[in-house]
Amino acid sequence: MAAREARKVTISVIADLAGVSVPTVSRVINGRSDVAPRTRERVEELLTRHGYRRRPPSMRASSGLVDLVFNDLDSPWSVEIIRGVEDVAHASGVGTVVSAIHRRTSSAKQWLDNIRTRSTEGVIFVTSILEAPQQAELRRLNIPVVIVDPAGVPAQDAPTVGATNWAGGLRATEYLIGLGHRRIGFIAGPPQLLCSRARMDGYRAALEAAGLSFDEGLVCRGDFYHESGFAGGVRLLGLAQPPTAIFASSDQMALGVYEAVRQRGLRVPDDVSVVGFDDLPEVRWCSPPLTTVRQPLVEMGMLAARTVLRLAKGEKVESPRVELATELVIRDSAAQFG
Amino acid sequence: MAAREARKVTISVIADLAGVSVPTVSRVINGRSDVAPRTRERVEELLTRHGYRRRPPSMRASSGLVDLVFNDLDSPWSVEIIRGVEDVAHASGVGTVVSAIHRRTSSAKQWLDNIRTRSTEGVIFVTSILEAPQQAELRRLNIPVVIVDPAGVPAQDAPTVGATNWAGGLRATEYLIGLGHRRIGFIAGPPQLLCSRARMDGYRAALEAAGLSFDEGLVCRGDFYHESGFAGGVRLLGLAQPPTAIFASSDQMALGVYEAVRQRGLRVPDDVSVVGFDDLPEVRWCSPPLTTVRQPLVEMGMLAARTVLRLAKGEKVESPRVELATELVIRDSAAQFG
Repeated sequence: MAAREARKVTISVIADLAGVSVPTVSRVINGRSDVAPRTRERVEELLTRHGYRRRPPSMRASSGLVDLVFNDLDSPWSVEIIRGVEDVAHASGVGTVVSAIHRRTSSAKQWLDNIRTRSTEGVIFVTSILEAPQQAELRRLNIPVVIVDPAGVPAQDAPTVGATNWAGGLRATEYLIGLGHRRIGFIAGPPQLLCSRARMDGYRAALEAAGLSFDEGLVCRGDFYHESGFAGGVRLLGLAQPPTAIFASSDQMALGVYEAVRQRGLRVPDDVSVVGFDDLPEVRWCSPPLTTVRQPLVEMGMLAARTVLRLAKGEKVESPRVELATELVIRDSAAQFG
Repeated sequence: MAAREARKVTISVIADLAGVSVPTVSRVINGRSDVAPRTRERVEELLTRHGYRRRPPSMRASSGLVDLVFNDLDSPWSVEIIRGVEDVAHASGVGTVVSAIHRRTSSAKQWLDNIRTRSTEGVIFVTSILEAPQQAELRRLNIPVVIVDPAGVPAQDAPTVGATNWAGGLRATEYLIGLGHRRIGFIAGPPQLLCSRARMDGYRAALEAAGLSFDEGLVCRGDFYHESGFAGGVRLLGLAQPPTAIFASSDQMALGVYEAVRQRGLRVPDDVSVVGFDDLPEVRWCSPPLTTVRQPLVEMGMLAARTVLRLAKGEKVESPRVELATELVIRDSAAQFG
């Protein structure tokens, strides 16, 4: 829609329509703060309606900032991504603006107002999806966008950086099979996320490659959070024939399984082997240290920052979708069976 | 020194001295990017030498940004502070620029270059101390500074936000004494940090109030990180007469004690009670969930942001040093003794 409407509209046309001077329109476009809010709103509305586009990024002065936007800052892995983005941005003399929009339209709108006045080189979204009008607004402002781990909804017209979820699920399950386990429970993530499905398909593929049958009774549905891992662990350990190993498809769920094992008076890995997915920094410090599939979160942040800074210079990216390799990190939570 | 040298110097004097035009000096002062680097350097140097001060913050246009500066983004609690700062800043329509300066002068310099060109409402440092010339530079730029949890080195001339470390140490120890423990081990933080000393003094005060003697043999030196908690736990559990409870003065060290307990074939809290300090989000999910002293990290970030935004408006703060209350969060890692 926005593209169809777009045509060559000049600042003076907008000024006429808004009943303001050309310098006023110019001030709005350049994000200056010395414009009355109602005037700015009217001018912005006309700019959007007539598909006015700012000069391409390469012709603009550098803002010295990139934006990193989360839905919520409630996950321990958010700091890993911040670290990667900040590292690359800092080395380029660029500041990293971190925002949480809490899945609220009002909050996203406030954030957009802020970047409109202060400007930005580009935006990195972390699994967070703007609504269509806000996406259109970013396009109109000619602000490059990159998405980190889009949790399986790569619908936006922007490059994405993810991890090889299927390969990670495969590797973790192969490892448990290699230790002699034959009954391996699985705790899945939310089914609407592609990354959840990829991890489960990796689990299933490893079983099938080893000639083991996929048993629905050994699969629990979780939501990546601790409580669902605990509930899954309780259910699996309560089976008449419980699994000897449990692969939880997030670290938080794996720690929930730890607690289910402890509350049953059992031990990891003596009685049950557990493998997680993510490799959050703190799973090195849980007891026993967790064997898990590492998502390269810092590197994903770094690549996203490099990509957005290249786009800001007007460069093109080679591939709209990049997946960085996951790897199994072997610690002490899985043991030989039988 | 800087204050003594300060006198009324005008832009045109600086322009004469630098051999450039008045608008060029003005562009440097306003952080515009369209000035040759060498010219900017010369003008900046003259501005500093002659003690030129920018207009007070209340007279400047809003930058729409606050800066939040860490030494490193390697601690899980950094995201808690980011969350608090971002929450308040976002609600005020202000973006939060997160930086890590890695204790490197070059990195701090790069960050200063960045804020000089893009400007900022104010800076929140997290236990990070700039070197004197960089502090002077921030003063000259008239940028307000607030420090979060200065780890006991409140030497800078800036308001600080901390937590009641002594009261937290006291409360945790009282709680263990109330459960019947008489031999309570303590794992200390780095002695050069005031917060470490305050936590240990709280531990000692609770023992003395209960008529228990302070036993040097039950105290281990740590550095707040996991490994030192593990080493302390190994030493304490190896004593001829080991403690029945261990108070580790950080959560990471408490998790190190968990691992020492597990490796000895013992259980928390059946064989040894453990209490931590911090209340990082993940200690809810360790097994068993950790009883710990909560530092209100999110609230500390919120207060720091509110303070810096008030200073940016030219308001004064009531107190240069504020400590928010710690509280004991009781979970499952400490049990009745005897």
